[in-house]
Amino acid sequence: MSAKTASASAAPSATASATATAAAPRRTLNFGAGPAVLPRTVLERVQAEMLDYAGTGCSLLELSHRSAEFMGLLARASADLRALMGVPANYRILFMQGGATSQFSAVVYNLAVDLAAPHDYIVTGGWSEKAAQEARRLGANVNTVFSTKATGHDGRIPPRSEWRLSADAAYVYYCDNETVHGVEMPGDFVEQLPAGVPVVCDMSSNFLSRPVDVSKYGVIYGGAQKNVGPAGVTLVIVREDLIGTRTAPGLVVPVMLDYKTCAENDSLYNTPPTFAIYVSGLVFEWLRAQGGVEAISGVNARKARLVYDVIAGHADTYRCTVAGDGVRSRMNVTFRVLAGGAPSAERERAFVAGAEQRGMIQLAGHRSVGGIRASLYNALDEAAAAALAAYMREFAAAPAR
Amino acid sequence: MSAKTASASAAPSATASATATAAAPRRTLNFGAGPAVLPRTVLERVQAEMLDYAGTGCSLLELSHRSAEFMGLLARASADLRALMGVPANYRILFMQGGATSQFSAVVYNLAVDLAAPHDYIVTGGWSEKAAQEARRLGANVNTVFSTKATGHDGRIPPRSEWRLSADAAYVYYCDNETVHGVEMPGDFVEQLPAGVPVVCDMSSNFLSRPVDVSKYGVIYGGAQKNVGPAGVTLVIVREDLIGTRTAPGLVVPVMLDYKTCAENDSLYNTPPTFAIYVSGLVFEWLRAQGGVEAISGVNARKARLVYDVIAGHADTYRCTVAGDGVRSRMNVTFRVLAGGAPSAERERAFVAGAEQRGMIQLAGHRSVGGIRASLYNALDEAAAAALAAYMREFAAAPAR
Repeated sequence: MSAKTASASAAPSATASATATAAAPRRTLNFGAGPAVLPRTVLERVQAEMLDYAGTGCSLLELSHRSAEFMGLLARASADLRALMGVPANYRILFMQGGATSQFSAVVYNLAVDLAAPHDYIVTGGWSEKAAQEARRLGANVNTVFSTKATGHDGRIPPRSEWRLSADAAYVYYCDNETVHGVEMPGDFVEQLPAGVPVVCDMSSNFLSRPVDVSKYGVIYGGAQKNVGPAGVTLVIVREDLIGTRTAPGLVVPVMLDYKTCAENDSLYNTPPTFAIYVSGLVFEWLRAQGGVEAISGVNARKARLVYDVIAGHADTYRCTVAGDGVRSRMNVTFRVLAGGAPSAERERAFVAGAEQRGMIQLAGHRSVGGIRASLYNALDEAAAAALAAYMREFAAAPAR
Repeated sequence: MSAKTASASAAPSATASATATAAAPRRTLNFGAGPAVLPRTVLERVQAEMLDYAGTGCSLLELSHRSAEFMGLLARASADLRALMGVPANYRILFMQGGATSQFSAVVYNLAVDLAAPHDYIVTGGWSEKAAQEARRLGANVNTVFSTKATGHDGRIPPRSEWRLSADAAYVYYCDNETVHGVEMPGDFVEQLPAGVPVVCDMSSNFLSRPVDVSKYGVIYGGAQKNVGPAGVTLVIVREDLIGTRTAPGLVVPVMLDYKTCAENDSLYNTPPTFAIYVSGLVFEWLRAQGGVEAISGVNARKARLVYDVIAGHADTYRCTVAGDGVRSRMNVTFRVLAGGAPSAERERAFVAGAEQRGMIQLAGHRSVGGIRASLYNALDEAAAAALAAYMREFAAAPAR
């Protein structure tokens, strides 16, 4: 922890709080991929309620998960999410733990049917690759429908005629938005998958960012820490007929990964991550106030356009890492900064440093791929995307150092 | 959510924050079993830092788990916990997810050696019972060393000569403090277990409440939401030689339950629950400032004495549910309120209602056992325990309604 933090701790708390409210601290523009920017009004409300939640005289952090206050909050969050996404009545919403990575395992435990049956994985980036790897490790017969690994997960999706789909798959799995590689599947991608096979989709990094027809899916899940809330809670939307009916012989589901246990106990089998659910609920309220998913989808499209247009207009300075058509992510814009026509780690460091001087942070690409990544999640407003675009033009106009 | 909360949401946020700070909200005395009371200064600091963590211009909630700020915080929390508990160098501290319930499974996956080998479980309450049940479900050959179930988990531990310990057990498991039943093992209990067999101990509800000789244990774990911090992070302390060496043939550890993966990635294999770790770290700092575990242990003993003395002194009104000697929990004091010499749910409701009128909340016993439960965790100060004791005397003196 920095010296600055330590000194804040020494200050009398009333003063510290008053300062936080009154002095309007410099607000950076946060392009981080997750944990990521949250709506300012949500953070202010969390701050205001920190010492006294709903008149209880204690913090939400101190309240039992079985208190009327928390149970009400959970029901409200669940109902708001259902309304926002139009989740049909025959789907359950589960609040789980362990992030998408836990769901890599949970999917196999809950849905494998028969480990020897084909488990169809579509591999478009690092996350779907990890999901397939976990399924294989747990003994599932993984069938790779296609993989873009050979071309560095650059989004060049092979034509459908080359896909190796199984008619009798236990499920077909894909990742809707690859946070590291900046590849987002088209909104109607699910339509290209075989009817009758449950579709499992990781939407961690584009959850609630555009309309989704939930009825086309068997399971949708996402870690909250991108578009929803703090790290620590995982949202799982699962069709009821898939719950507790498809565990493969020979597999025992560890209790905390069991959809059935979670559903039967309304996500309260043990103590859930109450604070993360609380903040997620506030974000749902905020999103409803913004006009919901349809409205934010339009905003997201405009933000992405602002940044991609600069990339396209300055081909001597920027190159998008995604070469495929129609799969450039609206959420994570990944690109390289060039020097003499080639990606330059040195110039990328200069780009990031210049951005930080202008209050734009967390723009470095994932450590596994380098480059630049600008994440433009729901809570990042259009002005921030415009500021980034302006800086990118300015940077491109300056002579390379 | 209550109407009160909803209206707070409608208010301009600056006003709401100012109110929370300036009006010094009524502070209840919180006897909840978890999520539970946190140190006031910790909550005030969380509030003060909510919009700007360590000068970053954004909230800790919005910072990458790989940012310098979070990595520093995590290292500091780990070092502080190591110092507080005197964790030897050959033990790793892991920050995991899913609560103690996930550890019920993790223990089997990581340490079973051979599922057919005896897995020794000591059953002293609802939580150790659930742990044994999960081990059995995952296929382990569970040997119950002893169980107090027949006497309602009332703490009557059979003499050691009657224990059925296995010399060749994969491990021996016990729960140091049974939160629901109010049974806490003596501090030297571990000395009575066979040398050479790894001891696995669930310390969720008495973590950091008294000195522990970590070197006597193979694994110690605890959900944070009792003595440490918010729900959502689980602390696991594991001896290095047990990591990645004892998985039973035929078992595959789901990746997020794997001690080896967690240790090799310094608890950052995927996005950890950053906020819960942050608050836990602040609680560690607070505890060090209180004089550490030795000092708080003395405070905890005095608090428990205050309440148990009233129970003992008013045997016509109160009866402790724990009949065994030397195992009455300092953390969760469980008792019944009597009418005509017998437990009376009606009088207990009156007791809880009277307490709430005096600002003392979350005193109802666990829904599975009823009665009263006063949890006296580290962050509950002596004055609060004294206030409860005073109310208990007052209640006992009043004629039964």
